[in-house]
Amino acid sequence: MTTVSDLSTPALVLDREAFDGNLQRMSTALPGDSLRPHVKAHKCTEIARAQEAVGHRKFCAATPKEIIGLARAGVGSDLLLANETIETRRLADLAALGEIVTVAVDSEATIAAAAAAGITSVLIDVNVGLPRCGCDPGDAGRLADRARSSGLDVRGVMGYEGHVVGLVDVAERAAKCERSMELLLAAHGQVGGDIISAGGTGTFAINTWANEIQAGSYALMDTAYGPLELGFKPALRLVATVISVSPKFAVADCGLKSLGMDHGNPMIEGGEVLFCSDEHTTFRPNTPAVGTPPLTVGDRVLVQPAHIDPTIAYHDRIFVANGPGLGAQVADEWQVDLRGW
Amino acid sequence: MTTVSDLSTPALVLDREAFDGNLQRMSTALPGDSLRPHVKAHKCTEIARAQEAVGHRKFCAATPKEIIGLARAGVGSDLLLANETIETRRLADLAALGEIVTVAVDSEATIAAAAAAGITSVLIDVNVGLPRCGCDPGDAGRLADRARSSGLDVRGVMGYEGHVVGLVDVAERAAKCERSMELLLAAHGQVGGDIISAGGTGTFAINTWANEIQAGSYALMDTAYGPLELGFKPALRLVATVISVSPKFAVADCGLKSLGMDHGNPMIEGGEVLFCSDEHTTFRPNTPAVGTPPLTVGDRVLVQPAHIDPTIAYHDRIFVANGPGLGAQVADEWQVDLRGW
Repeated sequence: MTTVSDLSTPALVLDREAFDGNLQRMSTALPGDSLRPHVKAHKCTEIARAQEAVGHRKFCAATPKEIIGLARAGVGSDLLLANETIETRRLADLAALGEIVTVAVDSEATIAAAAAAGITSVLIDVNVGLPRCGCDPGDAGRLADRARSSGLDVRGVMGYEGHVVGLVDVAERAAKCERSMELLLAAHGQVGGDIISAGGTGTFAINTWANEIQAGSYALMDTAYGPLELGFKPALRLVATVISVSPKFAVADCGLKSLGMDHGNPMIEGGEVLFCSDEHTTFRPNTPAVGTPPLTVGDRVLVQPAHIDPTIAYHDRIFVANGPGLGAQVADEWQVDLRGW
Repeated sequence: MTTVSDLSTPALVLDREAFDGNLQRMSTALPGDSLRPHVKAHKCTEIARAQEAVGHRKFCAATPKEIIGLARAGVGSDLLLANETIETRRLADLAALGEIVTVAVDSEATIAAAAAAGITSVLIDVNVGLPRCGCDPGDAGRLADRARSSGLDVRGVMGYEGHVVGLVDVAERAAKCERSMELLLAAHGQVGGDIISAGGTGTFAINTWANEIQAGSYALMDTAYGPLELGFKPALRLVATVISVSPKFAVADCGLKSLGMDHGNPMIEGGEVLFCSDEHTTFRPNTPAVGTPPLTVGDRVLVQPAHIDPTIAYHDRIFVANGPGLGAQVADEWQVDLRGW
């Protein structure tokens, strides 16, 4: 039987127990259609399949490729491209999937492109404070009219409070979430439709205004969400091999090409990360406990990514283990089949 | 004819003219065997082939997969794994390629693993100041003896002054490079062999102590090396599409999953990057010149990565264009075939 320690490194390892617990916790809090899991976090059809197995039928994604992959795999019955795209060929590929697909629009240009490509359903994407996509809340009604007169079914609104989801202070997070959702609800009043889609892992428990939450990170978690104490467990680690040991530091064979770095350095179990290079992580090992041998070349170490989404995008597979440690048995191998564009 | 503007986005685009100029400039400064191009920078066999075409026969790499790919493609006649590995299976795969392969070793454990796997040739990797791999300079002679008594051919030493290559002040860079190379030369005195391998793009012109330079970034460049004024031109950009425009900012469809972020934000032509999300870059467009239309949804923009190595590792292909602009013709498509492990 293969254990985590037997894997060629670096390799992503999913702790099935923690992962199942995270899915269970979320589907208890937000059962069925009240959660729209975001597949951008993992880009893995098998993970989406597990999310479907606990009751979620609606999914969202950041790229057409993610939507197309889910549809072809038969995962989900309501797929939202929660992002704008203007490219005719890709929109036509989405339209070919039929009424299962809804796309976000936030401008006359994206509405025209969606209609021209044969897309049937849209959400009006509303800017609720994060300077990114989304129309001005006051313009949402006009765009909805435009979409309907172009033959599109306007199912409602979406608006992502991405500037709020990471705030550590829960009272501040709740207050700012409410302010964002007031904007979204006002826009919804002008737009109509059944759907008010918003939120993320950081606001899943406090965003009571949206009627579906777009959370992705909760399934695997990362160190960046740790301080928010959301009750989800880290379920994805990178196993690496110690390839060099010096008196004051050691080096593991993972680095900038196996770890998303925008949230800073990863954490390493048994030491402190000093810096990452392309294929190396230099770290200071903790002083070994009495009776424990010091770290040596060939030892395996577990590394916890600071940001899982861009970490997973570097890997073509995730190994599924039956626990968190190096001795856990590897039961499966899931392809990261939705990456690229 | 396809132009850069016609590509599905985000897509990496190589400016063939700038790229050829960079290869020419480097092969004039360090012709033939005085340069050992580092393929970790690009992970692309076709780029290595172009480096071979201007006279370089020796290559180095950071992963066994990079070495194996080059060997199978018949590129290079002297391939150095400039990194430690302890994994028996991978070392055996390298050994099966024959005498074309040399690996770096810096400990008794890596020497034993190389010898056991049937590797024939090694370099002693010496720590010259960067806290990463490499033995203590004073231990290099002992390790060389150990390697030779294990039946390995010790071809010399390598030592990477990675803490020096990025220093903007050229006098400081030269002085610290000299100090590092004094350590490497002292180790070489104990080790013997023909090879003294060191350096990178930042020290290619000032490291006169090594007899081969391991440079990689020079071929494509990135914004991080810009301030050093090394004479190489940026030859790799990401083309992206504007998917949303607001009064104060716009959003392009590239982000944390298409750009290595450890050196900070990318630069965008025609604007200033505010922040990157998974699949978005929010930027402030420059005020358009009189008579020029403002930025609109569907426009293409060119983005220059801050760090090319981890940027390329997110992509499966590089489009080759005949110039730097959006109107340049796309002449070829090169696979990033050496990524993964």
